[in-house]
Amino acid sequence: MTAESLWQYLDGLTKPPRSLGRLEELAVRLGSIQGTRTPRTAPRRLILFAADHGVTAAGVSAWPAQVTSLMVRNICAGTAASTVLARTLNTETVVVNVGTLEDLDPPCASAAPPIHYRNCRVRGGSRNLACEPALTLEEFSQAWQIGEAEAQAARAAGVELAVVGEMGIGNTTPAACLAMLLADVPLESAVGRGAGADDATLARKRQVVDEAVQRVRSLLDDEPARACAAVSGLEIAAMAGFYAAAPALGLTVVLDGAIATAAALIANHLNPGSARNLIAAHQSVEPAHAGMLDHLQLAPFLDWNLRLGEGTGGLLLLPLLDAATAILTQMATLESFGIAPEAQG
Amino acid sequence: MTAESLWQYLDGLTKPPRSLGRLEELAVRLGSIQGTRTPRTAPRRLILFAADHGVTAAGVSAWPAQVTSLMVRNICAGTAASTVLARTLNTETVVVNVGTLEDLDPPCASAAPPIHYRNCRVRGGSRNLACEPALTLEEFSQAWQIGEAEAQAARAAGVELAVVGEMGIGNTTPAACLAMLLADVPLESAVGRGAGADDATLARKRQVVDEAVQRVRSLLDDEPARACAAVSGLEIAAMAGFYAAAPALGLTVVLDGAIATAAALIANHLNPGSARNLIAAHQSVEPAHAGMLDHLQLAPFLDWNLRLGEGTGGLLLLPLLDAATAILTQMATLESFGIAPEAQG
Repeated sequence: MTAESLWQYLDGLTKPPRSLGRLEELAVRLGSIQGTRTPRTAPRRLILFAADHGVTAAGVSAWPAQVTSLMVRNICAGTAASTVLARTLNTETVVVNVGTLEDLDPPCASAAPPIHYRNCRVRGGSRNLACEPALTLEEFSQAWQIGEAEAQAARAAGVELAVVGEMGIGNTTPAACLAMLLADVPLESAVGRGAGADDATLARKRQVVDEAVQRVRSLLDDEPARACAAVSGLEIAAMAGFYAAAPALGLTVVLDGAIATAAALIANHLNPGSARNLIAAHQSVEPAHAGMLDHLQLAPFLDWNLRLGEGTGGLLLLPLLDAATAILTQMATLESFGIAPEAQG
Repeated sequence: MTAESLWQYLDGLTKPPRSLGRLEELAVRLGSIQGTRTPRTAPRRLILFAADHGVTAAGVSAWPAQVTSLMVRNICAGTAASTVLARTLNTETVVVNVGTLEDLDPPCASAAPPIHYRNCRVRGGSRNLACEPALTLEEFSQAWQIGEAEAQAARAAGVELAVVGEMGIGNTTPAACLAMLLADVPLESAVGRGAGADDATLARKRQVVDEAVQRVRSLLDDEPARACAAVSGLEIAAMAGFYAAAPALGLTVVLDGAIATAAALIANHLNPGSARNLIAAHQSVEPAHAGMLDHLQLAPFLDWNLRLGEGTGGLLLLPLLDAATAILTQMATLESFGIAPEAQG
């Protein structure tokens, strides 16, 4: 079913045409991706990729690197923002450790819906992109394949709708590099405060990003994957692999904030068309986000000043996707009620 | 619990302070109204007030007046936008007929959650406000009391959260009058296209509103209820009565769009403080809406180009209120994980 025929159907329902505004846009986006007037929003799954970033050594983050591992424990315990929202919104969670500094085996909350933890560490964090490539091409590919395998596993389990999120202290720095490199976002708007950087931290971060991008830009044409690897991170590479695999699997993916969108830029750069199954949940506070979404031609649905990550923005869109689906599938038509607008003028 | 102490609590949870943006604002608004860190969003109820408007005879609407009754049937059948969303969002519905032209006894869908219909017709529609007062003071008071009684009935049934909506062809015309009269919205932005008026209809509507407001403005100081009655409608008066009763009952009310907000202006004008239990769900396309919300000092949470009414915008906020409550009640604190921001600089 095309967007055009979905609009036509919506315009014949018992409401003034287009009077449900962006809820109708959401219905059309979801229906177009799934190619049906009766799209599905369940079973659904939150997949969270976690990894550390060597660039934290350059003083670019407001939080110490060990917070990544603590937060993975918190997420698995079901008491982090992401898993609290996932539970409320009836969404199971898979936490995939692609490379925290610490080797972890955290206990998972037993309450339904389930939380699963997978230890797939490629290495203990990425290297410091301020000095050297964050990942080798091999590490990048390994993480990418972990993401790809998660998309396949989700689809094999019947998942229709996936929210992909991340946890990684320091990861707004590689995201800023990727925004500049792949979406031509200028330095000033590419670099933001992430999870709370002060002015001095922001200045250091800006310098690190500027230098790293200058170093890899020349690589982009001939060795695009190596260029992306140099300024990314393990969780970002895994997310990119997930997005790239989704269209062929027929999996609908809700896109979260700035880091998630940086990963989508990689997916779309290396595998053009990877963005076609994405629904952009929100516009983040992170200044690079708007330019990245524009580049992917995605219109965000919520403008809620979010900047947490962990897939939280994506999760908030889930009940609104349920609502959009209900409108498409359960409303009566104007014709069935013999209702028509009055001749005006 | 005050807003300040709610913010303090939220800032100590395992996330960067304020990183959940407007979801945190929503949590603070809900917690402040209920005076607790553990607010409740259920049991909840959609209360829809329906009535006809004599002003449709002046050619101000894109739809014939009999659509009100057809839509009441559709709502009760569970196949209108409002009842489709209410079912998806696990919300029972009470439809209160305060004055359709036709005397109705429509069948209600039997699927859970329930839909109830109450026939409380004060009269068959309001009078044409283009020529005479839409309602007498007695009719206005009768409708107001019906609304008040619905708030009491909801509370007696244990309802914590109410969404109040309306159905009434022609009701953006009285809403525009009320926006001018009670919130000083200028004529140009007070009058919009409602459910789809064309240019000629819009011009007629503007003239009707302008003349009606000029006629009643002098009444406002000495006989405020009579002035409101003259440019309102039965469902609007009932909604005003509902809002005015909510604070003393400890009932939290989600405010829908332009018509709902016009009713809130009446409530707050006749009973100052009536807006303090309201949460503004969204900013409607209807141009008068922004000025009315400003007047009530309410900040809307969704900007989704909605203009359907029936409480649909209010319903869309419900799962986000659930999410806000979950954040307040289920997240771990930074202290419990021994996490603190790094000394920066």
